[in-house]
Amino acid sequence: MEKPVLHIIKIGGNVIDDKQALFSFLMEFALLNEPKILVHGGGILATRLAEQLAIPTQMYEGRRVTDEESLKIVTMVYAGLINKQIVAQLQAQHCNAIGLSGADANVIPATRRNPVPVDFGFVGDVAPSTINASFLENLIQQGIAPVCCAITHDQKGSLLNSNADTVAAALAIALSAHFETHLIFCFEKEGVLSNTDDTSSLIPEITRVKYQELKENKLITGGMIPKIDNAYKAIDAGVKKVIIKHARNLKNTIGTIIVD
Amino acid sequence: MEKPVLHIIKIGGNVIDDKQALFSFLMEFALLNEPKILVHGGGILATRLAEQLAIPTQMYEGRRVTDEESLKIVTMVYAGLINKQIVAQLQAQHCNAIGLSGADANVIPATRRNPVPVDFGFVGDVAPSTINASFLENLIQQGIAPVCCAITHDQKGSLLNSNADTVAAALAIALSAHFETHLIFCFEKEGVLSNTDDTSSLIPEITRVKYQELKENKLITGGMIPKIDNAYKAIDAGVKKVIIKHARNLKNTIGTIIVD
Repeated sequence: MEKPVLHIIKIGGNVIDDKQALFSFLMEFALLNEPKILVHGGGILATRLAEQLAIPTQMYEGRRVTDEESLKIVTMVYAGLINKQIVAQLQAQHCNAIGLSGADANVIPATRRNPVPVDFGFVGDVAPSTINASFLENLIQQGIAPVCCAITHDQKGSLLNSNADTVAAALAIALSAHFETHLIFCFEKEGVLSNTDDTSSLIPEITRVKYQELKENKLITGGMIPKIDNAYKAIDAGVKKVIIKHARNLKNTIGTIIVD
Repeated sequence: MEKPVLHIIKIGGNVIDDKQALFSFLMEFALLNEPKILVHGGGILATRLAEQLAIPTQMYEGRRVTDEESLKIVTMVYAGLINKQIVAQLQAQHCNAIGLSGADANVIPATRRNPVPVDFGFVGDVAPSTINASFLENLIQQGIAPVCCAITHDQKGSLLNSNADTVAAALAIALSAHFETHLIFCFEKEGVLSNTDDTSSLIPEITRVKYQELKENKLITGGMIPKIDNAYKAIDAGVKKVIIKHARNLKNTIGTIIVD
């Protein structure tokens, strides 16, 4: 029997920070007929709130350290303000959404990252095998769309800050047992470009063979390589396809599809 | 057939503001074997955050006006920080809790209060008949404990700030069709006292007949009268009993039981 399709769609801070872009995106998300999960990042709101409260942002090699005060900030902004505003807007579009942190119904347990050699504070790593897939399946069967932020928990009483891309991939992997999962990363470009300055150089489809060629010919370089490597890790773990596209193109076919 | 008992327990700001008291309360809540819902208020965290951000608190005749900036604050604090910290602590106590605002799964729709004669801003009034009881029943049947904050929504895309006592009563009324609902208000006193300065004057049980006598003899006065009137409104609407007690007495029988 064919599995039903499930879209796991991740939107990043660039969409969340643009009120009109977010509204348009949510309109299109609401119209998607197939089962769907939204995963959202945080954007600059958390940084701005930390600045207003004079809470210093600690960085280590370009990565944020989440101390106790920073954890409160991201919990307020991601799990509170952004998550509930998205849910309220989806409800207004007749999409029955439910906002979830990883602590809610124990949907996304995480492990606090080893403080050695670098203590990143309250940062949680997520494993697909620990995701509470059956609860999410139950929601989806009721026609409800989960809206997940990347605040997780350690099952010992502490919330943790996780990476939203990783959370989206872990959800897609965990749900691939019962769904044909399509993992869609919406970001600020049209997709994978062979020339980063030229939108017309969009690569519509990448297979494993083509990926090797593109890398050998230096048409894919830099930060896109770990992104595509992670896409293939998800595909190895059961995800059917990974799509990288601009948030404004959710309902059309413009973007890059990564398949086996 | 007898209906199963469902406890709807409301905790106020005085418990939330006291880390140790909150922890003890959540330990006892987690141990309750029967189906249960927790409703929480906000406490002084929201006021403190507004002060830190220099957002003025507007009051009208002692009641807070929720303007757009204040709505963001209470959404961050109630639906984000407090709600998720409570859920994470309950999960650590092996209580499978799920945090909900009224927008999530459209659990608690509300109507923005008429701005005439006084515009209280983004304040929502809740009607028991509009509560999404079937979704909550489904969670309870899965052994999950809903943890509700008093952030609701107007179904048109806006979040609203509602009264947590009213939300608790509306939930108890809405769920009384399928459960014997016990509505428990945890506050900073032992219960209804005939002498507010003397804990030993606790009235363990109030019936309608006794309530009339107590009022006639001026043993119940002031702010307790609207509380008990509201308790009888809930009982009229299907709630089996209303209990007023101290948060530390959740598991014992100290408190005031209000029955028909």
